[in-house]
Amino acid sequence: MPKVAGGEGSKQVFKKVLLVGIIVLWMLSFPLAGSAYAQTADEVTIDTGDTAFMLISAALVLLMTPGLAFFYGGLVRSRNVLNTMMMSFILIALVGVTWVLWGYSLAFAPISVSGDCSNLPDSIQLNANPIIGSLNWLFLNNVAFDQPDPVCYAPTIPHQLFMVYQMMFAIITPALISGAIVERMSFKAFFSFVILWSTFIYAPLAHWVWGKGWIFSMGALDFAGGTVIHISSGVSAVVAAWVIGPRKNFMITPAAPHNVPYVLLGIGMLWFGWFGFNAGSALGAGALATVAFVATMVSAAAGGLTWVIIEWGLRGKPTAIGIASGFLAGLVGVTPAAGFVTPIGAILIGSITSLCCFYAVSLRAKLQFDDSLDTFPIHGVGGTVGAILTGIFATKAVNEAGNNGLLSGNPGLLIPQIVSVIVTYIFAAVGTYGILKLLGLFMELRVQPNSEDQGLDITEHGEEGYGEEFASGLSFVDKGV
Amino acid sequence: MPKVAGGEGSKQVFKKVLLVGIIVLWMLSFPLAGSAYAQTADEVTIDTGDTAFMLISAALVLLMTPGLAFFYGGLVRSRNVLNTMMMSFILIALVGVTWVLWGYSLAFAPISVSGDCSNLPDSIQLNANPIIGSLNWLFLNNVAFDQPDPVCYAPTIPHQLFMVYQMMFAIITPALISGAIVERMSFKAFFSFVILWSTFIYAPLAHWVWGKGWIFSMGALDFAGGTVIHISSGVSAVVAAWVIGPRKNFMITPAAPHNVPYVLLGIGMLWFGWFGFNAGSALGAGALATVAFVATMVSAAAGGLTWVIIEWGLRGKPTAIGIASGFLAGLVGVTPAAGFVTPIGAILIGSITSLCCFYAVSLRAKLQFDDSLDTFPIHGVGGTVGAILTGIFATKAVNEAGNNGLLSGNPGLLIPQIVSVIVTYIFAAVGTYGILKLLGLFMELRVQPNSEDQGLDITEHGEEGYGEEFASGLSFVDKGV
Amino acid sequence: MPKVAGGEGSKQVFKKVLLVGIIVLWMLSFPLAGSAYAQTADEVTIDTGDTAFMLISAALVLLMTPGLAFFYGGLVRSRNVLNTMMMSFILIALVGVTWVLWGYSLAFAPISVSGDCSNLPDSIQLNANPIIGSLNWLFLNNVAFDQPDPVCYAPTIPHQLFMVYQMMFAIITPALISGAIVERMSFKAFFSFVILWSTFIYAPLAHWVWGKGWIFSMGALDFAGGTVIHISSGVSAVVAAWVIGPRKNFMITPAAPHNVPYVLLGIGMLWFGWFGFNAGSALGAGALATVAFVATMVSAAAGGLTWVIIEWGLRGKPTAIGIASGFLAGLVGVTPAAGFVTPIGAILIGSITSLCCFYAVSLRAKLQFDDSLDTFPIHGVGGTVGAILTGIFATKAVNEAGNNGLLSGNPGLLIPQIVSVIVTYIFAAVGTYGILKLLGLFMELRVQPNSEDQGLDITEHGEEGYGEEFASGLSFVDKGV
Repeated sequence: MPKVAGGEGSKQVFKKVLLVGIIVLWMLSFPLAGSAYAQTADEVTIDTGDTAFMLISAALVLLMTPGLAFFYGGLVRSRNVLNTMMMSFILIALVGVTWVLWGYSLAFAPISVSGDCSNLPDSIQLNANPIIGSLNWLFLNNVAFDQPDPVCYAPTIPHQLFMVYQMMFAIITPALISGAIVERMSFKAFFSFVILWSTFIYAPLAHWVWGKGWIFSMGALDFAGGTVIHISSGVSAVVAAWVIGPRKNFMITPAAPHNVPYVLLGIGMLWFGWFGFNAGSALGAGALATVAFVATMVSAAAGGLTWVIIEWGLRGKPTAIGIASGFLAGLVGVTPAAGFVTPIGAILIGSITSLCCFYAVSLRAKLQFDDSLDTFPIHGVGGTVGAILTGIFATKAVNEAGNNGLLSGNPGLLIPQIVSVIVTYIFAAVGTYGILKLLGLFMELRVQPNSEDQGLDITEHGEEGYGEEFASGLSFVDKGV
Repeated sequence: MPKVAGGEGSKQVFKKVLLVGIIVLWMLSFPLAGSAYAQTADEVTIDTGDTAFMLISAALVLLMTPGLAFFYGGLVRSRNVLNTMMMSFILIALVGVTWVLWGYSLAFAPISVSGDCSNLPDSIQLNANPIIGSLNWLFLNNVAFDQPDPVCYAPTIPHQLFMVYQMMFAIITPALISGAIVERMSFKAFFSFVILWSTFIYAPLAHWVWGKGWIFSMGALDFAGGTVIHISSGVSAVVAAWVIGPRKNFMITPAAPHNVPYVLLGIGMLWFGWFGFNAGSALGAGALATVAFVATMVSAAAGGLTWVIIEWGLRGKPTAIGIASGFLAGLVGVTPAAGFVTPIGAILIGSITSLCCFYAVSLRAKLQFDDSLDTFPIHGVGGTVGAILTGIFATKAVNEAGNNGLLSGNPGLLIPQIVSVIVTYIFAAVGTYGILKLLGLFMELRVQPNSEDQGLDITEHGEEGYGEEFASGLSFVDKGV
Repeated sequence: MPKVAGGEGSKQVFKKVLLVGIIVLWMLSFPLAGSAYAQTADEVTIDTGDTAFMLISAALVLLMTPGLAFFYGGLVRSRNVLNTMMMSFILIALVGVTWVLWGYSLAFAPISVSGDCSNLPDSIQLNANPIIGSLNWLFLNNVAFDQPDPVCYAPTIPHQLFMVYQMMFAIITPALISGAIVERMSFKAFFSFVILWSTFIYAPLAHWVWGKGWIFSMGALDFAGGTVIHISSGVSAVVAAWVIGPRKNFMITPAAPHNVPYVLLGIGMLWFGWFGFNAGSALGAGALATVAFVATMVSAAAGGLTWVIIEWGLRGKPTAIGIASGFLAGLVGVTPAAGFVTPIGAILIGSITSLCCFYAVSLRAKLQFDDSLDTFPIHGVGGTVGAILTGIFATKAVNEAGNNGLLSGNPGLLIPQIVSVIVTYIFAAVGTYGILKLLGLFMELRVQPNSEDQGLDITEHGEEGYGEEFASGLSFVDKGV
């Protein structure tokens, strides 16, 4: 697969060996399957209402990835629409398989567990590695379809349902990164990148926070993925954009969104799916899901309203991309907080996050840094603000299993929140940099310069987004560049 | 904010004082929070199946507003697509916040309530104002996330879930109005209009019908919003179109829909969401939801079939916009009836409503009245026909809590149905007229004439729906006008 | 309605009499309503969780038909986009009515039934015709909204909910056929064709497999419709394409997809809806739905991944239409197997099906046969492969009510699987051929040749998909042909 020029063969071989060696070493650091593993959840307590809700929630979260494809696809030029969309769709294909084979096990499998869920949390004896899952659930070995998981992640639904619900999160997270490197990254490089990223960055992060890893043990709150999903993808996005470099003619040739209605369709699908994402993170249909649902709704609304009002005030005109960005900022900001805050708290979180993201987007533009679709200013900044605001607005009045934040008299929650944010920044940044540099030894990370002019749809995929009826304008405007 | 010309300053101040005075007076007419309010639903009876269904139903109803954005957005010219879509999306942002702050309380809060839901309806002592809710639930004060509402609107789901479900209705209703005034109304004026309309028109109407107000007490049936949603928006639409006036060059320059597939996408999303709207109005997952689901499905199908057959017979060709209009007519017509009629009744309701709407659309075109996207002929006429047909087809065989209609031997039901229709017409018409005239004192209601030529996307929002590749044709056809 | 030239009147009358006669004879072969019919399910056992899940599942399956409209609509040229989409939407209108009137009864009504669902299967005395349902449930007579069906198809949800869920399957199946005959079939002929096809092909097939008919009795497994849905529509598609003939200028004028993002939107909607289709076929929210959900997800992912890798390896570039086709192949392949296989089995099914469909599509192209959108290579071949793989991968470890397949030591299951496939091929092919030939006596099956140049949107529906801004390119490229 690497483009080998005659005399460089041995160098290539060396690089390959290096890569394999690193992967093997990493793998060896995983705890191996222990014989102490025993699944004894003999009282099956599956609830049809919770199961119904989680089945639909899983479907909703899957729908977010096509939604993201339209959100991002509408923002690029028409000659790159398919390549941009493919970077989302390919993740469904990839992680939909790898999650079953190894991803879920690395993220969620304990070393050993005994007891059952009848008297949580005392009745469970859990031995989980703080850094990474185990190989106990590789190929979904020991992952039952007809009883809850033995760790009691979700005691009222089948274990496989919890697994497939988590799969949807693992799919969309790397897809979010693509926003930063559209219109120039090689599809082969992206394909390779996301396999490694989802294995070596996402799986450990998910384990730390949701798989009873060290961030969980530290007491940080992240309801539906402020750190795991949004900071990790946002930070990785900015690193990827930096490593890969800006688009040819960035800031010279205008790159207006080719289809803003697609962006609005995308945000509509994302929001709809986000109810499954946030409310579904309650893992059942009851009070907690309601709290998260309401928080998600009003934070997103407040985020959109805030952005529109700022634009109106500062620039005289509220834009469609602005309202979509504000909605997205509100959704991102409330993600870590959704199950821990009141509706009024959620409105404030949405507004504050939107405000911060607005200025982050402006700053990004001023710095002329080509994070093309503002992935870091929205997901990175939004996730960070949300994680910290969770430490401020969280209240046990809403969720006894959560914690009180600053406004409920407990400034101490801010410490694990901030620590988890910082560590996620470092881990995602270093990991993404390492993966990309490693891949760069084996393949070109970006397409040829003239491919950017032609459009990646043709050069990377051999097809065009629109038939020639529509492409007629293209011949004058775009192809001549 | 008002454009003040030098000498007219005092007049402007007077107008502002007048506006504020009217609002304050109205507000004072609201019953204030009483100390008699007591929430004593101590037996929590939340059902996971009902909660699962209502969470998803709320998400489905939210999705209708982006669906409407595509339905309307596809019907306008490409230079106004974003403005048209924004008029739907902005309502998610606005009402998503105001409903929490005051909307829900004005629509649904009682003056006082005692008792619990264990032995409905006898066990509840309810004191509800017939005209408007109270301020008891302002800022969601007393709106629990973990127990049912004390009025027993929805005794098996958390109160906040009922609240957020109703929020989705409050969002889409004003958005429906926009169809009548697209391509010319100032976005600022629309923004101001819908804040007032949702507070002073929607909240009282919702209270009358669903908040135990006077229409409820009178015995009128409106399952999911024939009067509250469709008549109110349809009538307001026609009044708004009349006050604001027709588009420049209306009936001179052709204004063909710029993207009919968007219209079909829109009706697809609307229909999908409408299951949450109508079946969800059962407020639980059981027989009643099934009745409403089936009625919704078959009425919409019959509506589409009827429209297509009429078009085919009269004009020789069935159209895509026709089938979409017929589906919509069927959906609107069955909305007030959904939980009270048999499947065969629903098929007849869909067919009759579609027939009436077809002729209403034709008449609107003949009258050359610029209700641009036929909001009144579909929602106003359809809602009216549906409300009256509910008085004909309703049967206690399907819903004991409902009533028998004419065909079940009770002509008496027609009286409250007709009264509620008439009062809704008057209230919506007068209210909309008043709000617009009041706003007209402070701002221009419509854009400048040359803005209409340029397109409101550029003049109101500073952006274009489609990138220049697509806009090439636009330069010849549209911009020259 | 038939175009009668003066002297041919008597021939036309003869044809009509012939048609009516055949239909009446067929009808007479239906078992008539028996007086032995008695509904005695006196213990109502409706479960809110199952009902919630099935209500949403029904909505999801409905959404698949608009999804299909976009999948197909994006693949055709812009001058035929509305006609293509209408062929899907019209089925919602048509079958949404006919299913209530006669379709459901023909497919699912038994001759008689007694007993209740309390001790399945022993407690039910069922007398079902092996070939066709009965007229017992005509017009939904005896189809309760508040208790389960007496046959115990779905013992925990209302009978009408089961009915409307099955309606959605009956809607999409004939719509699938349209992919083979787009851009040339008369809309009137299609309209007539699908009325007959859904009555005389779909209803019996559904009865054989799901209505306790002979295929069910034989022991064949078809969880969500490999034979009933995909083989039947795929085989009918190829026969219809053959009877109607290829498009004018097929293989001469290029016919590039006019909007590939629509194809991706379509597959996104289809996949999302497919969860309702496959997991919903468990008819409740529990372990079985989880099995089917997971199988659906991973098979589709594996299908997409396989297709992309093959394209990449063989042709150097992975395409967006390729990944969409692979996802679809994976979804089709797993449909008969979803409730009977493990996740690893489902991954293999998805990969193998995708591989077979890839080569079937290539072969179809080589043969220059105008099954325009590859309906047979995907649905026919995919359904066949899936049905046979079900006989290989099925295991009672996953579903006790199913059976073991070859890999679980029971080669015998392959026999009913193969018999059911063969019979479905023959029945669908002969039936479709017969219906089309019969219709050909009364009307032209395809449009006039110059209509194909002009586009069927204009000639069949009198409208265009896109406003003139977008159509500007069209005037040079398309209209001149």
